Formats: sequence, C-alpha cells, structure tokens
Amino acid sequence: MKVLILGGDGYLGWPTAMHLSAAGHDVAVVDNYLRRSISRDEDVEPLFEVPNLHWRSRRWEELSGRHIGVHIGDLRRWDFVAEVFAEVRPDAIVHYAEQPSAPYSMLNRRASMLTLSNNLEVTANTIFAMREFVPEAHLVKLGTMGEYGTPNIDIEEGWLDVEHNGRRERFLYPRQAGSLYHTTKIMDTDLLWYYVRVWGLKVTDLMQGPVYGIDTDECAGHDELRTFFNYDELFGTVVNRFVVQAVAGYPLTVYGKGGQTRGYLNIRDTLQCVRLSLERPATAGELRIFNQFTEAFSVNQLAEMVRGAGARVGLAVDVEHLENPRKELEEHYYNPVHTGLLELGLEPHSLTEEVLAGMIEIVTRHRETIDRHKIFRNSRWA
Amino acid sequence: MKVLILGGDGYLGWPTAMHLSAAGHDVAVVDNYLRRSISRDEDVEPLFEVPNLHWRSRRWEELSGRHIGVHIGDLRRWDFVAEVFAEVRPDAIVHYAEQPSAPYSMLNRRASMLTLSNNLEVTANTIFAMREFVPEAHLVKLGTMGEYGTPNIDIEEGWLDVEHNGRRERFLYPRQAGSLYHTTKIMDTDLLWYYVRVWGLKVTDLMQGPVYGIDTDECAGHDELRTFFNYDELFGTVVNRFVVQAVAGYPLTVYGKGGQTRGYLNIRDTLQCVRLSLERPATAGELRIFNQFTEAFSVNQLAEMVRGAGARVGLAVDVEHLENPRKELEEHYYNPVHTGLLELGLEPHSLTEEVLAGMIEIVTRHRETIDRHKIFRNSRWA
Repeated sequence: MKVLILGGDGYLGWPTAMHLSAAGHDVAVVDNYLRRSISRDEDVEPLFEVPNLHWRSRRWEELSGRHIGVHIGDLRRWDFVAEVFAEVRPDAIVHYAEQPSAPYSMLNRRASMLTLSNNLEVTANTIFAMREFVPEAHLVKLGTMGEYGTPNIDIEEGWLDVEHNGRRERFLYPRQAGSLYHTTKIMDTDLLWYYVRVWGLKVTDLMQGPVYGIDTDECAGHDELRTFFNYDELFGTVVNRFVVQAVAGYPLTVYGKGGQTRGYLNIRDTLQCVRLSLERPATAGELRIFNQFTEAFSVNQLAEMVRGAGARVGLAVDVEHLENPRKELEEHYYNPVHTGLLELGLEPHSLTEEVLAGMIEIVTRHRETIDRHKIFRNSRWA
Repeated sequence: MKVLILGGDGYLGWPTAMHLSAAGHDVAVVDNYLRRSISRDEDVEPLFEVPNLHWRSRRWEELSGRHIGVHIGDLRRWDFVAEVFAEVRPDAIVHYAEQPSAPYSMLNRRASMLTLSNNLEVTANTIFAMREFVPEAHLVKLGTMGEYGTPNIDIEEGWLDVEHNGRRERFLYPRQAGSLYHTTKIMDTDLLWYYVRVWGLKVTDLMQGPVYGIDTDECAGHDELRTFFNYDELFGTVVNRFVVQAVAGYPLTVYGKGGQTRGYLNIRDTLQCVRLSLERPATAGELRIFNQFTEAFSVNQLAEMVRGAGARVGLAVDVEHLENPRKELEEHYYNPVHTGLLELGLEPHSLTEEVLAGMIEIVTRHRETIDRHKIFRNSRWA
C-alpha cells in the first residue's frame, strides 16, 4: 500500500520508512527537520551525524532497489500539506510529526508554545487533509503511554467501562500526563476522537512507551542508514542515555528514588507494531487504541541492567540519584494492559544484558564524539 | 480586587465587566474584537449596533463614577499579553477570550483552525503570563457543559470517582464533546489541569450551559450599554434565536426530533456565578470545577415556551422540525449535578414565559433590523 510517513526524518520515522519499504509498501516521507534545528539550537546534537533524507533515500534505493519519496516542508502550512496529500494520495498515513521531547516542552515559554502549536496544528492539518483528499485512508498516530500518567488503578487499552449510579458508559480511558509534551498528545487524542466520531475517519492510536535501540534489520551493515541517536536529556530516551553514560564513564543519572516505572520497547518492535497496524487497519469511525510496549521496568531496574551489561565488557558503571528535576511520582502503582498488539502478531524483543552490550559496543566506536556536557543540564519542571 | 477580563467585548464579557465594577472591583478588559470581525465577515451582525469598548467604558464611568481599563490587542501575541499583565497585575483573571461558536468551528477548515489556534494559544499565554507576572492570581475560566457531551451516566461536577478491579482513583470526568469548539474547551481543560498540578495555579473552571437574555441590572435604562445580541445560527444561542424568530414570524428551527436536552441559564446568573467564584477563590494547586446552569430543557420544551410567550403578546409562533445539520443524539439520558454554585450562594433566575415575554418586548423594538437571511444557513457538521 501507499504509505505517507509524517516526521520521516526522526528517530522512528526513518527506520519505519525503510522497514515498510523493505516489506513491499510504496513509501513517501515528509519532514521539516524541526528536530535537527532544535538539536542544534539547544546544543544537543546526536552521537553521530545523519545524512539528510534526500541522501538517505538515494542510498536506500541503491541498496534495495526501492524508492522512498521525500517531501521537505512544514506540515503546519496548509499549502504544503495540500500539495503533498494531493500528489501522494496515500492509503495510510503514519503520523510521527510532533515535537517529541518532554524536557524540551518544559524548557521555557517559547519551547512550550512551539510544542503546543506544532503538535496540534500538524494533527489538525492531517485530519483536514484526510477529509479532503483521502477520506478512506487509515491514520496510524503515535500516542504515548505517558498520556495515562500513573493512576492508582489498572491502565486499560485506551478505553474504560464505567459503572456509576447503576448505569454504564464506555469512555476514553482518563488521561493525565506528566509534561506539556505528553499533554499535547492527550489533546491530539481529543481531536482525533472527535473527528473519528463526526467524520468516520479510520484511526489507530499507538500509545507507545519509551523506545530504545540503535540498529534495525534494514540498516544492518550500513551505518550510513542509521537513525538519530540522541544521548542528551532533551531527546535521548533513558535506556539510550544510560548506555552512552556507561561508555563515557558518567554516572547513570537516576532522578529521585528511581521507582518510576514505565513500559519500554525495542525500536525493532516499534516498526513491527506500526506495520502490523497498517496491514490490519481500523475501520471507518473506529479509534483503535493499542498500548505499545513489551516490558515494564523501573528506572532503578534499568540502571542495574546497564551496570550489569557494562560489567560484561569491563566498564565500571556508577549510579547516582539526583534531585528529581521533573514533577512525577517516584513510587507508584503501574499495571497497564498490553495485549492488543500481541494479538495482531507482535513478536517482542526483550531487553537483556546482551542487547544492552550490543548497544554499548556500537556506542564505544563513537566514544570520542561523546560530549559530556550534553548529558545532563537539569531542565526543571517547576 | 483587581480583575482582568479577557474577551471583555463579548456577549458575557462586557456585562461581567459592568457587574464586577458595580460590585466595587477594579476592572480592566482585553479584547481584539475577533467576534466582531467574524460576525461581519460571515454576515451575521447582531440585532443592534454596539459601541466599542473605549466608548462604553467612558459611558460607564460617566454613569457610575467607576473606571474600567480597556486594552485592545491579540492575546495570541506574547508581547501584548506581557504588556497587559505587567501593567494590570490582576488578583484574578476571567477568561472568556475564545472563539465561542460551535457552528462556526465546523464551517470550514480555516474557521476550524482559527478556533483551535486562537482558543489554545490564548489559554496557554494566559497560563504563562500568570506564572511570570501573577503566580498567586486566581483564574476563572469559562468551560462548557458541552465538554461532557451526553453520556449514558450521571454527569458529576468535574470529577469522577472510579472503582476498577478492586482499586480506586479520582479522574477528571471523561469528556466527549459534540463540536470542534467544544473539543477545544476539553483541550483547554487538559492544559489547565496539567499546569495546576505542576505549577500550583489556582483555577476555577465554570462548565457553563447555553446562556439566554439581553439586559442585566447594570445596563437597565441605558440601552447604549447593552451587550451583543446575536440571533443567527453561528453566534445566537437557542433561546435568543427563538425569541427573534418569534418576533420575525419565522418558524422556530428545531433540529431533528428536538429531544436534545441541555442545562440553561440567564445571563444575570452567569454574572452571579463569576462574581461568587472570584470572591471565594480556588486554592493553590486546585482545579475547582462547577457545572454552571440552573435548569435543563429539551429544545422542544424551549420551543413550546417561546410559543406560549408569543401567544401572550399576540404573536402566532410556528415550530418547524428541520433535518439536523449537527451530529448529535436527539434523544438521550441527561442528568448533570449542579449544586456547587448554589452552595456558593447563587440565586437562580428561572426561565418563564414572563422572562421570554420581556425579551420579546425588547426585540420587538428592533423588529425592523431583523435580517431573516441571517437566521438559518444550514452550517453542517458532516
């Protein structure tokens, strides 16, 4: 099928493009390099340089014989959105085109407003473009497990059946997030759920946990096709950061007590989940929601695993508990359902010391370029 | 106390300004006349002309001896927001500054995007300005009963206690609205609830039903101080529209079966509710939510009451059931709690045939200016 990936330059966007292309789909990507410009502006460039999308698309075509269309522009501009949708006429859209960093969204007023306006206007333009150009298309939207926060009851898969004063209703599972970024994802959900009901759109919302990993099958042996790998506080997810800290001899930065528990997944599993969702689409008027993670860990558990993986390759890894710059519960109940994607056929990759040791090995090759100043800047929530 | 009213030119904004000024508060208003320009652009000007805010503020001062500060500008622009907050340093903010029309928000893509961007950016700027200039101030935000939609269970006052698999949690009452406008109000709530938790803001969210009425105590005998009175499909609320339709001999336009039930209130009660909320503020870190209406009616009941009021003054009023241009349930369960404001001291004005006859009398004086083409344009949801 013809798949348009919004945010195709990102950590997940580009690997998804290669994965879907390799699986036989006709792929086009859109990006405005927003994350690159923020990374440069905030002095948090990734571990190694990543060629632009045009270059990577050509390289992918040389290696695979398969074309990936590239459209560079800002999805907040309707003229650009209309041009792309009219030209590509996708059967499905994968929407990653959001400012994805929680700490960046809390950095200052301008960063907050950029996050809010960018994320909501891109989602709204995507909805309007589907309505106008491809009303039958299926939208796969990346949500986040962070939308749910850490409630004191089990987290269901998107919906909650409520019995109240003898009557029953099914609602969107109540959401209360821990950053402005995560809150914009809740607002996305509100918007999508409204237009699913009123216009009968087909939408799958993937409530994803933090992703870790570097390589995917499609870039194996071709380092030049690797995706971004951030190890800083703004764009680096926790496992990726800890791996770099271990290699750099920088103590693992655990915020507060370290009991914060989340559901994690390997980047290879993100690609599987997106492909499985595309290949078995939502129906008209359906907002289908999956909780997209494979294993839950506390930050302390992750730190211990990275310490163990480091020991295997002779790295002495320290763990340091810092005053928590975020506002979040450091010990809490956490029991989210995540069966939907397994039922669709997901075959999870587990997070093991072997997997971490493999990441450590790749990062060690880039050891000289690690900038210790990028690792922790204490971006505070309050 | 020093009260800053955002959206002080609107149907509720100006009467609130006079009411709070008369009650001894030091009032300033902000507006960019957005609703005036939309009314002109869409050919739905109100029943009579309304002088600008500078003129009305001078007139109010002549009559009452009390000053109302006027600030004209766009609250989406941070430079303007910062200037106003730094100058006024309010103790409390009343936030009406949103595009308030559900049908306008569904009119076309540009109207939708204006509604989305305007409403969310103004709310976000208000939050950031409170944080920077007046972190102790109390925000009274106008939400809407429409955020809840029409669930099949009782609607509680903002919050819902859920028991699930043997554990308990209190959540924001789940919201699912019936228009993009109402959805932007849900998104406002998400944003406010997040910043109440992370920054300890003081916020009261008034979940208001449709308001009706023309005069308030403060403009009695001074027609030149009257607020906007729209009777069109975009900005006219249903009771106000029906009164004009009765006077114009235009059949009352009931959408579909007419069983749509909502909670209504007199404009005088809006002013009471806002004042009572201001005078007994929320505490730091509290999002206090009230359901702000006094009586629930179906559209059929309203039509019958207007027909009855018309008969008293010799008007023969017809009722016409039209194909519903909206997407909504036309028969549904509806049982919302609304005790919080009564406990604060609200003394409700009931909707009676006498009240409607009084409105009919005022509208009859403007009978010649009713433009029948403005009444119904069939702005469709889907």
